[in-house]
Amino acid sequence: MGKILRINTRTKSHTFEEVAGDLAGLGGRALTSKMILNEVPATCHPLGKSNKLVFSPGLLAGSAAANSGRLSVGGKSPLTGGIKESNSGGFAAQKLAKLGISALVLEDKPEVPGYSMIVIKENSVEIVPADEFNEKGNYEIMEKLWDSYGKKTAVLSIGQAGEQRLKAASIQQADMNGRPGRALGRGGLGAVMGSKKIKAILVDDSGASRVDIKDSDAFKTANKKWVEMLRGHSVTGEGLPALGTAVLVNIINEAGAYPTKNFRDGRFDGAQATSGEKIAELIEERGGITTEGCHPGCVMKCSNVYHDKDGKYLTTGFEYETIWAMGAHTTIKEIDDIAMLDRLCDDFGLDTIETGVTIGVAMEGGMLEWGDGKGAINLLKKVEAGGYEGKIIGNGAGFTGDALGVDRIPVVKNQALPAYDPRAVKGVGVTYATTPMGADHTAGYGVTANILGVGGNIDPLKNEGNIDLSQNLQIATAAIDSAGLCLFVAFAVLDNEDGVQTIVDMINAQYGLSLTPDDVVNLGKSVLRDEKEFNRRAGFTKVDDQLPEMFNDKFPPHDTQWDFTTDELQKTLDF
Amino acid sequence: MGKILRINTRTKSHTFEEVAGDLAGLGGRALTSKMILNEVPATCHPLGKSNKLVFSPGLLAGSAAANSGRLSVGGKSPLTGGIKESNSGGFAAQKLAKLGISALVLEDKPEVPGYSMIVIKENSVEIVPADEFNEKGNYEIMEKLWDSYGKKTAVLSIGQAGEQRLKAASIQQADMNGRPGRALGRGGLGAVMGSKKIKAILVDDSGASRVDIKDSDAFKTANKKWVEMLRGHSVTGEGLPALGTAVLVNIINEAGAYPTKNFRDGRFDGAQATSGEKIAELIEERGGITTEGCHPGCVMKCSNVYHDKDGKYLTTGFEYETIWAMGAHTTIKEIDDIAMLDRLCDDFGLDTIETGVTIGVAMEGGMLEWGDGKGAINLLKKVEAGGYEGKIIGNGAGFTGDALGVDRIPVVKNQALPAYDPRAVKGVGVTYATTPMGADHTAGYGVTANILGVGGNIDPLKNEGNIDLSQNLQIATAAIDSAGLCLFVAFAVLDNEDGVQTIVDMINAQYGLSLTPDDVVNLGKSVLRDEKEFNRRAGFTKVDDQLPEMFNDKFPPHDTQWDFTTDELQKTLDF
Repeated sequence: MGKILRINTRTKSHTFEEVAGDLAGLGGRALTSKMILNEVPATCHPLGKSNKLVFSPGLLAGSAAANSGRLSVGGKSPLTGGIKESNSGGFAAQKLAKLGISALVLEDKPEVPGYSMIVIKENSVEIVPADEFNEKGNYEIMEKLWDSYGKKTAVLSIGQAGEQRLKAASIQQADMNGRPGRALGRGGLGAVMGSKKIKAILVDDSGASRVDIKDSDAFKTANKKWVEMLRGHSVTGEGLPALGTAVLVNIINEAGAYPTKNFRDGRFDGAQATSGEKIAELIEERGGITTEGCHPGCVMKCSNVYHDKDGKYLTTGFEYETIWAMGAHTTIKEIDDIAMLDRLCDDFGLDTIETGVTIGVAMEGGMLEWGDGKGAINLLKKVEAGGYEGKIIGNGAGFTGDALGVDRIPVVKNQALPAYDPRAVKGVGVTYATTPMGADHTAGYGVTANILGVGGNIDPLKNEGNIDLSQNLQIATAAIDSAGLCLFVAFAVLDNEDGVQTIVDMINAQYGLSLTPDDVVNLGKSVLRDEKEFNRRAGFTKVDDQLPEMFNDKFPPHDTQWDFTTDELQKTLDF
Repeated sequence: MGKILRINTRTKSHTFEEVAGDLAGLGGRALTSKMILNEVPATCHPLGKSNKLVFSPGLLAGSAAANSGRLSVGGKSPLTGGIKESNSGGFAAQKLAKLGISALVLEDKPEVPGYSMIVIKENSVEIVPADEFNEKGNYEIMEKLWDSYGKKTAVLSIGQAGEQRLKAASIQQADMNGRPGRALGRGGLGAVMGSKKIKAILVDDSGASRVDIKDSDAFKTANKKWVEMLRGHSVTGEGLPALGTAVLVNIINEAGAYPTKNFRDGRFDGAQATSGEKIAELIEERGGITTEGCHPGCVMKCSNVYHDKDGKYLTTGFEYETIWAMGAHTTIKEIDDIAMLDRLCDDFGLDTIETGVTIGVAMEGGMLEWGDGKGAINLLKKVEAGGYEGKIIGNGAGFTGDALGVDRIPVVKNQALPAYDPRAVKGVGVTYATTPMGADHTAGYGVTANILGVGGNIDPLKNEGNIDLSQNLQIATAAIDSAGLCLFVAFAVLDNEDGVQTIVDMINAQYGLSLTPDDVVNLGKSVLRDEKEFNRRAGFTKVDDQLPEMFNDKFPPHDTQWDFTTDELQKTLDF
């Protein structure tokens, strides 16, 4: 295992220490959640000196394992008030792993003004002034940093939203082209980075040796099988590479589960115009890239680069969730407006799900008209300027609903619901309600067996089986996030009886261990237990593991309701 | 007992019913809290159709008992998310009691635009359009309603803040001069009234007979003793009538417990210029009233009417808490600016404690300069205009701190702390932490034995004895609030061995009962149990019964810290 690099943001000093005690053997989400539980007082203010921000590559990061380059970041969330792990692709996870860094921890907070930047290289850690980037967006920051530090440097940065310590603030990570297309988006951890006055983190692994693999033959064998498995599955090998995540627009709309106009209807009359098929067609016409990985070693390449109608670059990482949040949820139908909203979020450093849902709630509260794309763009730009409208919007859906006195606010633990209605995809609804993260589809993606027929078939409209489905997926996901693997590997793993074993084989070969699939399950459970324990200490109860009352209403076209009791839902993470 | 008048704000219909079952024998806070516990789902949205707003006069309301005219209002608080009882003087409690109404309940919420007004008379209840008052402040509303309905009509109304459903919105009650000087202030219940689209409530008891007194001789004897007791105590008979509540400015400042500049120091260099003595001197010079009751039958008359330097009316009910919140907390020293801020709060319908603390938090976040009175006035006026700065400020201290990314926010259960530092008046600090109401000095006013030497002497700077002090006061206060008595009677009651018995004698004489002081204690306990149970169902835990971490810092001049553990504090309401 590697070392923990701790940076005191007040004294501008750093230390290295061994990964020891109950942290030994952990990586990614398992490590961030354990460290937050151990070291952060659960009742502290998320923007105060007692909160910490922990970045950790997964266990397989830096190896040749396909799709193992996700970086986790953990902390107490300013959005939810509970524990948070958020992860993204990019270069940083693999470079940190190669530098032997299992966790980078930002501690304390400065008492004086001025932003800093952390530069991590093979034999040095520097904390240098970064005031040139004050009030700058992520596009400019990343472009300048790649110019100065080279185009192989991993960059994590915050935009104006993080500086303003807004609850929807993301940490953006430079993508394959050095643009802020990847987001450690959910839960407002960009605000924690802002509170610690760190504007950017650079990781340069030049000169570092490769990650040590204990049994390289066994590793190669397992990884070969792994790549074949991913390439051979219809979702990871065909659907995602061809149309990206936006392939889901038509699928979920067809299923009557595509939440439209702030969760009033399951079908959107603008779905075709904003579908993956339409976007692929436009990229074909205008230039851009349909099939792009989010980190080196990705074999699915579900990301993209999207150009405007003049053929000029507009945005990157233009994903299903963003298209939904800015589109169906707000009833904006103009795809280029939606793409601009995505770009602005990346630039200012805002979670696109939270922000899109917020714009819909702002429409609910009369701040602008339903479907007004240009109005939404103008509103979002207020975040850049630091105006008070921007401070409302940038603090998320719950905050905006409260500012406007709206009682129809689709949040759990104050985090906005993603792009599947919980009444029409009940497996993912159970995850929204019960994950310690707040409403989060990636914590246990029940869409698999509910809609996609992956890993079995469970009726999305009925309660039966959906608590078990969410439980199993939440456990598996916690383990996948700890390995540093892309969540989408789950499609192939769920449909392949050797799936979990293959991951275990890679970990065993890398570390010289003899883990079993049961150990992986136990790891996943242990991560969830840590997270629940933090939330318990922070004052969360079963009352927080439920959807808001707006979901008691019937949801067309299937006219189903959310009718799990709070006690039923408690069984989900009761192990 | 009287009847319950239920008004459905959606259908604009009403019903009367008996006070029966577990509601029988209750009044004031005991009745509002029991009804909210019984009828409002604890997890509902406070601005949604499931919340209710319950107004209830106390048990002694409408009788000749001195100081028995306080009106309670209860609901789920938009500010705290927990149960709330707020009370004020005015005419309404006595008039409702004379009309035989023990509780007025606003239910459901309209689905169409447009405000209504409720007019309650001896033989009629009308719900009439009130759109003429849209976006109007309480001064104009009350003046016009007294012109139309006569100067003996009780008026409750909401200003622009309640219309906008802001979390600091109050319900104002017309004072003795028909001005909005009395506030059902804390917890944002004005926003609940706004969500139900009720702009005003009028109560006219013309033609109603007097409240029935079962044993009028016994009642007269007890009330005579009661009046003598109140007039004979140095606080209720001398200090409060002479200087009003602002008598406390110099006392608390001298004690080093007057929270200055967002709870950084216990002494304020502007205390003299904003003291009760100074205000009395200015009223003497400029005209105005130094000694005014908040409701008919008050014998303390601790309220006032304050004029500006040209001798023109400026504000009324200019109280210690407001002077502190707008003054020492923000370091504004100009008393006329503070008075203007008070007036604007009354007019827009905002709680002055929450709003003053909010202005200080806004200063903390750089929204305006410390001590800038004119800037604060301009900022507060944004609430009237419905602007986004106003929506931030009007949603209270926690919300404003979050909007600005501030981590120094003096709130408990998201309600702003009042005018006694919990590190230097630990008895009231225990109340702030543990009352189901959120930080509230009136829930258990430990200043008595801590500072004023009333009801004994307990060291304000040490932990010893202060949990018991708060417990006893919280129980007594819940009973006093249920009787409809002014909280300040506690000064005389605590220093008089016949105090509680005299209250019991009045209740027994009025209702033909044979209660004992123990029954009163049990009533107080039962009210607190109901309130804690609602909060438990709403998801509150012991974590919510603690002060924020900023109070771990030492507080000058005594350099004491807040160091009660959460488990110690749990003993306060453990009975």
